[in-house]
Amino acid sequence: MTGLFLTDRLKSLLPRIQEFIRKEVVPLEKLLATKPFIDLEKEELLHLRQKVKQASLWAPHLPEHEGGMGLSLTEFGQVSEVLGYSPLGHYAFNCQAPDIGNMELLHAYASEELKNKYLKPLQSGQIRSCFSMTEPEFAGSNPTRMATTATKEGGYYVINGHKWFTSSADGADFAVVMAMTDAENPNPYLRASVIVVPTNNTGFQLVRNISIMGETGSGHHSHAEVRYENCKVPISHLIGKEGEGFKLAQERLGPGRIHHCMRWIGICERVFEMMCSYAAQRELAEGMPIASKQMVQQWIAESRANINAARYMVLHTAYGIDKQGAAAMRVEISTIKFFVANVLQQVIDRAIQVHGALGVTDDTLLSYWYRHERAARIYDGPDEVHKYVVAREELKKFGVKI
Amino acid sequence: MTGLFLTDRLKSLLPRIQEFIRKEVVPLEKLLATKPFIDLEKEELLHLRQKVKQASLWAPHLPEHEGGMGLSLTEFGQVSEVLGYSPLGHYAFNCQAPDIGNMELLHAYASEELKNKYLKPLQSGQIRSCFSMTEPEFAGSNPTRMATTATKEGGYYVINGHKWFTSSADGADFAVVMAMTDAENPNPYLRASVIVVPTNNTGFQLVRNISIMGETGSGHHSHAEVRYENCKVPISHLIGKEGEGFKLAQERLGPGRIHHCMRWIGICERVFEMMCSYAAQRELAEGMPIASKQMVQQWIAESRANINAARYMVLHTAYGIDKQGAAAMRVEISTIKFFVANVLQQVIDRAIQVHGALGVTDDTLLSYWYRHERAARIYDGPDEVHKYVVAREELKKFGVKI
Amino acid sequence: MTGLFLTDRLKSLLPRIQEFIRKEVVPLEKLLATKPFIDLEKEELLHLRQKVKQASLWAPHLPEHEGGMGLSLTEFGQVSEVLGYSPLGHYAFNCQAPDIGNMELLHAYASEELKNKYLKPLQSGQIRSCFSMTEPEFAGSNPTRMATTATKEGGYYVINGHKWFTSSADGADFAVVMAMTDAENPNPYLRASVIVVPTNNTGFQLVRNISIMGETGSGHHSHAEVRYENCKVPISHLIGKEGEGFKLAQERLGPGRIHHCMRWIGICERVFEMMCSYAAQRELAEGMPIASKQMVQQWIAESRANINAARYMVLHTAYGIDKQGAAAMRVEISTIKFFVANVLQQVIDRAIQVHGALGVTDDTLLSYWYRHERAARIYDGPDEVHKYVVAREELKKFGVKI
Amino acid sequence: MTGLFLTDRLKSLLPRIQEFIRKEVVPLEKLLATKPFIDLEKEELLHLRQKVKQASLWAPHLPEHEGGMGLSLTEFGQVSEVLGYSPLGHYAFNCQAPDIGNMELLHAYASEELKNKYLKPLQSGQIRSCFSMTEPEFAGSNPTRMATTATKEGGYYVINGHKWFTSSADGADFAVVMAMTDAENPNPYLRASVIVVPTNNTGFQLVRNISIMGETGSGHHSHAEVRYENCKVPISHLIGKEGEGFKLAQERLGPGRIHHCMRWIGICERVFEMMCSYAAQRELAEGMPIASKQMVQQWIAESRANINAARYMVLHTAYGIDKQGAAAMRVEISTIKFFVANVLQQVIDRAIQVHGALGVTDDTLLSYWYRHERAARIYDGPDEVHKYVVAREELKKFGVKI
Repeated sequence: MTGLFLTDRLKSLLPRIQEFIRKEVVPLEKLLATKPFIDLEKEELLHLRQKVKQASLWAPHLPEHEGGMGLSLTEFGQVSEVLGYSPLGHYAFNCQAPDIGNMELLHAYASEELKNKYLKPLQSGQIRSCFSMTEPEFAGSNPTRMATTATKEGGYYVINGHKWFTSSADGADFAVVMAMTDAENPNPYLRASVIVVPTNNTGFQLVRNISIMGETGSGHHSHAEVRYENCKVPISHLIGKEGEGFKLAQERLGPGRIHHCMRWIGICERVFEMMCSYAAQRELAEGMPIASKQMVQQWIAESRANINAARYMVLHTAYGIDKQGAAAMRVEISTIKFFVANVLQQVIDRAIQVHGALGVTDDTLLSYWYRHERAARIYDGPDEVHKYVVAREELKKFGVKI
Repeated sequence: MTGLFLTDRLKSLLPRIQEFIRKEVVPLEKLLATKPFIDLEKEELLHLRQKVKQASLWAPHLPEHEGGMGLSLTEFGQVSEVLGYSPLGHYAFNCQAPDIGNMELLHAYASEELKNKYLKPLQSGQIRSCFSMTEPEFAGSNPTRMATTATKEGGYYVINGHKWFTSSADGADFAVVMAMTDAENPNPYLRASVIVVPTNNTGFQLVRNISIMGETGSGHHSHAEVRYENCKVPISHLIGKEGEGFKLAQERLGPGRIHHCMRWIGICERVFEMMCSYAAQRELAEGMPIASKQMVQQWIAESRANINAARYMVLHTAYGIDKQGAAAMRVEISTIKFFVANVLQQVIDRAIQVHGALGVTDDTLLSYWYRHERAARIYDGPDEVHKYVVAREELKKFGVKI
Repeated sequence: MTGLFLTDRLKSLLPRIQEFIRKEVVPLEKLLATKPFIDLEKEELLHLRQKVKQASLWAPHLPEHEGGMGLSLTEFGQVSEVLGYSPLGHYAFNCQAPDIGNMELLHAYASEELKNKYLKPLQSGQIRSCFSMTEPEFAGSNPTRMATTATKEGGYYVINGHKWFTSSADGADFAVVMAMTDAENPNPYLRASVIVVPTNNTGFQLVRNISIMGETGSGHHSHAEVRYENCKVPISHLIGKEGEGFKLAQERLGPGRIHHCMRWIGICERVFEMMCSYAAQRELAEGMPIASKQMVQQWIAESRANINAARYMVLHTAYGIDKQGAAAMRVEISTIKFFVANVLQQVIDRAIQVHGALGVTDDTLLSYWYRHERAARIYDGPDEVHKYVVAREELKKFGVKI
Repeated sequence: MTGLFLTDRLKSLLPRIQEFIRKEVVPLEKLLATKPFIDLEKEELLHLRQKVKQASLWAPHLPEHEGGMGLSLTEFGQVSEVLGYSPLGHYAFNCQAPDIGNMELLHAYASEELKNKYLKPLQSGQIRSCFSMTEPEFAGSNPTRMATTATKEGGYYVINGHKWFTSSADGADFAVVMAMTDAENPNPYLRASVIVVPTNNTGFQLVRNISIMGETGSGHHSHAEVRYENCKVPISHLIGKEGEGFKLAQERLGPGRIHHCMRWIGICERVFEMMCSYAAQRELAEGMPIASKQMVQQWIAESRANINAARYMVLHTAYGIDKQGAAAMRVEISTIKFFVANVLQQVIDRAIQVHGALGVTDDTLLSYWYRHERAARIYDGPDEVHKYVVAREELKKFGVKI
């Protein structure tokens, strides 16, 4: 890879983070198999986070005056890839979803009061948060189609609704909730708003942690079904303006997809390394490593090509967002979302096949990612929706509206 | 599908089994999410098996004089598809792997003494068994390359070795073990033998149930790592003759692959039904079901085509085995192994994508099969090995040996 | 392949045809490169057809009392595969499209007068014919959407319209034309009729032979653009009844797709043979044939699997048509259309890759089929339409109409 | 696409070339269907080349002091894409293969005498040339394995050998020939040399123009089989030093692959435009354009993603060559070779499918590219060889040599 996006500070920063990940984070991965995961969270991970702070690597995505590094999106993307090398990387550095998106949202749009109460402890890693948008009754992650409402009563919003896939709700201190504040607005993009809801509110009911791919999970690693039943929060908990929900969700998702995609590329590189390493070491017969098989070689080459292609596309998109804003890069953002998610799935699948029986066990991380990342082609909009967006924009140039 | 393979007795039998599966077995599937699964095994499943016996549907693969139905392989294949509709189907009817393969092996090659002691209670469902072949130190399921040895001492075999993926060892009463009895034989196909080892033997050590795709499992649903340490069993525990291990493994695997493949087709049909049903019911927007999307339609059509193709190939192969024996159908057996395993993976993947977020939860069976059946492309020989076998035989006709 | 569809007469017939093809037809293939192809048609092919007649193999699809063999569709399908081994096979045996479809149509629905005038000389190979349905102004091969009209005036139909892809029109004696006789009929399936038009009619204007994939072609090997300008033919030239055009086209297409699909499988087998043979003979380095490369082996195995799958599906479909009629096998017919066409394209593509530079030259037949058979995924309905048909029927079972 | 590689001079240059191509070159494409193509070459194209010179756009790849623009490879790559929009583009601007590669070779390594005699008229477009390397007896384009020899006798090389796929030999003034000058050298990379052979030499025998994909072609658009029979040329016709053949071929091929890949991307963009444009205009039914079909939309989106990925990879590779030389980018060069060639084939295939029957006719350029560019996955090393190279380098990092 040419270093066209490798700024001076990244030249020193990336190797430091890389070393930290390999030395401090990777050894903890064996705990991922331990259940319940909550214990890991409470002890080893807290300790790990301390080390990150001590190494002055904490929350690299934050502005400098808020304790971060003030990286551009293109720069943070490259950091995100390095963190993605381990499933624990982003959490260790406090830039894990959904917290990172909530930080960005609060940073840009919340009142000082909300910032003090929620953003600061979130940035310092004292509390966790969640983002509550998807509803089981509606297909897709579409903020124009939902049934959850926030009705103004006195100085309060009264929220009623049913959400699921509210990731990390278990143990979170607050939720950022998308709800209809003006459901009848003829412009569907002006119907929703974004509101902060403390999870200790009696109207916030965590129904269950949804079992996903065989794991119910807990804490940060969970996905809740939540009911909002006459959930009252002060009007001051609104983020941005009323009716801006769709707009804010989009702004949150644009850079968020860069984070995701670069994290996926980090996974790809780790998986690629595992595939090559195993192929190089494991013998099929006396002196004949798996790497001597042409099929394995072809998979390695195709994976290398696809990972490189994915990285170039994402970094150019990040660069475009840095220069022109997320709105200008809308098509590119949709393009990388489906392209990278598919590369990820292919690379994982090939690495499993190379590992044979070992590949389906939990003795390696392959199974972890095989299970956890199948959702990559679905969440934040399934492949098919993003392809539609790309096609729609391309076809506009030819005078047809689809 | 044309009914070319639908014999008269199947015409009445298949609908009966089908009804039983839908009425008695499917409702128990919700227990699959319950952990530990061992409880299910002990109670509900025992009760279910009683019902199967009462309905005179027990162990349909057995000869009539042993309490079965005396079905041809082509007929049993079609039964296996119907059972495969539920993950509990084969177990309920006592034709689950690895027991069914062990029954066939003992039936054909064991002494009367071994039959009385092990086969009879296995056929009646009183005990379970396992098959111990694969070794962590050697790639592939290749009975010519292994380190486990069985040395004759006095009237005993003394077995030493290390195995893994010994499915269902947890709670089994005996293991059928593949071990080298003549490791120096110049003909590698004459080196191994197959021996019955009771699991209460002190030399049989179940190291762990291997965690696979996030589940350690237990009982029938587990895959053990096993060590044989000076494990002494009487010479009379040999199945067949000494040195016949490879031959017997092949005979066990031939029809075994028909069972697997038809079970996979049963899964395909269930998953296909789930995909169509969800696409038909779930609305994307007012009155527009997911089924209205052309991509979904294309997936449905391609899945239908591939499933049909898979079924025809497997049934013709079964028919060939019935008429000419497994040896004559060697290439066809390798062909269906990789062909059907890949159709299975594709159909599951498409169904998940159609289900969106729901597809990755454990609220449906899709996640169960996504995790459990990734191994289909690996166990009993990975795709690449079976393709090699097919190519080798085709290329022989052109005078080249690969 | 198991011989389940190999009837007694096929057991002796197929090897005879196979030998004829290899001995008499294949040597003439070198003339395919010669241009214009018309010369070949006039001399060598006429001679070849004489040999076919002398060997009593002429027009095997015809009923016995009309000089054929009275084969079932399942039987003829297998003959068609053997003929498809050579691009000249079907022509040599007088069962080439579009003539074979026209023979079937005239045989089943034409008046005695039409039969005497057109069917008899067609069956004996004295004349050729064409089928004129597709229109450049309308997408698809949809007999409910066309602009060509046949207006009754006196005892005549006056036909006006614009057609293309009228295969083999150049040099044909008559065209079977699809035209609207009742364009306003509320039931679109009752609007069209099928009419015989002698090509020496002044109203029949062959605009051009369309250049396709680099070849304009001529004679039987051509695809014309045709204009019908006040083209008058006697009302007695109607085939079947007025308004039956759609129905007749469907009946013509059903078995026609079996013919095509089995011809494609014949091509697949030839191409597969070329791939294996070249891989076995051509050395990459001293003593290392191309066949030693694992990628080539995988392609051979996948091709074998796919060709076998294709053949089983087509023969079962043919068998179903023999037993229950084409209407009952509608979904299966659509399924094989897209399935086999895609297998064909893949097998050809792989064989070219195996042949390297030689594969793109006209020194082998690969380039011929690469060019001529790309249309297989388009004509008689593109893949996407057939997949839609399959999905529509499957989804009906789940209560949704797409 | 972000404009990261768009230098200031390209900002004005690219739109000028783009306009020239659309206004002056595209209208001549209709002549591509005319045969023999030689006439076009002699008249319209000569006139077109005059216009290019008048517009000061001639031979943009040349250094400024030789009448070109002194573009970097990264810049010329972007020009090459724009030229690739038309099959006539590169020829019109005198940067067509194989002449451009020969120009680069002569420019860098030829003596002044050879430059005056061959390079100058080649650069001005007065003469054409060819490159004679591949041999029918040896698989691949491997300059270490060939039978053609150049034996020194007196002041001459006497060349004997058999070549094919000597593109554009018909009508060329000279050939650049790869021949063994030291066949027994233990280092196979030092065996061959590169020698200029005038085609009017009696030892240069053009056996035939090979018919490829249905076209024999002529002039620039041809691929000859050539025999060198006691072909004597002065020793001064050697390019570079004796034994440098392999090295020079590599240097010629490195940037050459950038040219090819960017030309392919130009084709991709044209084909993409045709696909979108046809999908937007062509109606399936009243008011429903083809573009309304989701499958078409998905193809458009996937094509856009793949073309963008391809372009980023190629430009980053070109940039790496500009900065570090071709040797340092060896893996990247192999990566783009197979990646882009496959994208090209896919995009063309989809566009044909969207065009339906029209797509296989010669009424559009799709058929031209479908036939002419299948070879892209073969020439200059087939996909499989380039994937091997990538895997070999990746696996080296893991300590295994394949």
